[in-house]
Amino acid sequence: MRFFEDVTIGEEFVSHTAYLVTGEEITSYAGKWDPQPYHVDEEQAKRTMVGRLFAPSILTLAISVRLSHESGYCDISSVAGLGIDELRMTKPVLVDDELKVKATVMSMRESKSRPKLGVMTTRIEVINQNGEIVLSYLLSGLVNRRPQ
Amino acid sequence: MRFFEDVTIGEEFVSHTAYLVTGEEITSYAGKWDPQPYHVDEEQAKRTMVGRLFAPSILTLAISVRLSHESGYCDISSVAGLGIDELRMTKPVLVDDELKVKATVMSMRESKSRPKLGVMTTRIEVINQNGEIVLSYLLSGLVNRRPQ
Repeated sequence: MRFFEDVTIGEEFVSHTAYLVTGEEITSYAGKWDPQPYHVDEEQAKRTMVGRLFAPSILTLAISVRLSHESGYCDISSVAGLGIDELRMTKPVLVDDELKVKATVMSMRESKSRPKLGVMTTRIEVINQNGEIVLSYLLSGLVNRRPQ
Repeated sequence: MRFFEDVTIGEEFVSHTAYLVTGEEITSYAGKWDPQPYHVDEEQAKRTMVGRLFAPSILTLAISVRLSHESGYCDISSVAGLGIDELRMTKPVLVDDELKVKATVMSMRESKSRPKLGVMTTRIEVINQNGEIVLSYLLSGLVNRRPQ
């Protein structure tokens, strides 16, 4: 377990394993959470700009959270999330894509109201097998300071 | 199906049904996508600031997308998402919370590069049974213009 004081601005965390996105997962996740016709039906997907099945952004975001847990990033003692800014869906996520996550610490500050906590802001980038960023965002959250 | 030209700035969409958040869904969703100890284990959750099990924000976000589909908001002819800004996790989502979504159209503009498309930005608010906003964000996406 690492604390606020153990983290350096610019520090990077990369997920060790790639996450394989299957067509079955896209349609089943979308069927439950984002049932756009073009996320659940290959024929409808063919008529879109993308031209084939692609993942709902909410699935890509969920994958990014899961991959963060495999990157060492989640060894930092987290208390709660605060917010997300500048989330950009830059490329469609397609069937058989293999995704990794890179988390880069952008800023660290002590909490003004809670002396035991700090606020950490991290840029999360989801990267496919071609090295393209498919989704990125800034994640801010509360982390524990080292107990005195 | 409604198009870019049919939407008015300030227009609101509210989900008809409330979404009941169960403890089973919190732990099973978190187990797959966000396995923080305090999202999957009630005993660990008791030791947090919240003091009991609460939903991962990624689950609340997924619920907000699903509820958007039940609000009429998704009758607008969508092409793809572009991004999310100013997402704030303002209150914990607890077991047995009943969530609704309010979507308010904040801005509409024609796409400069794609004459058949427009860009719509909507404020999404997730509201619990006490009328408290638990999560809010600005969602931008491409929508189809009415075919000529």
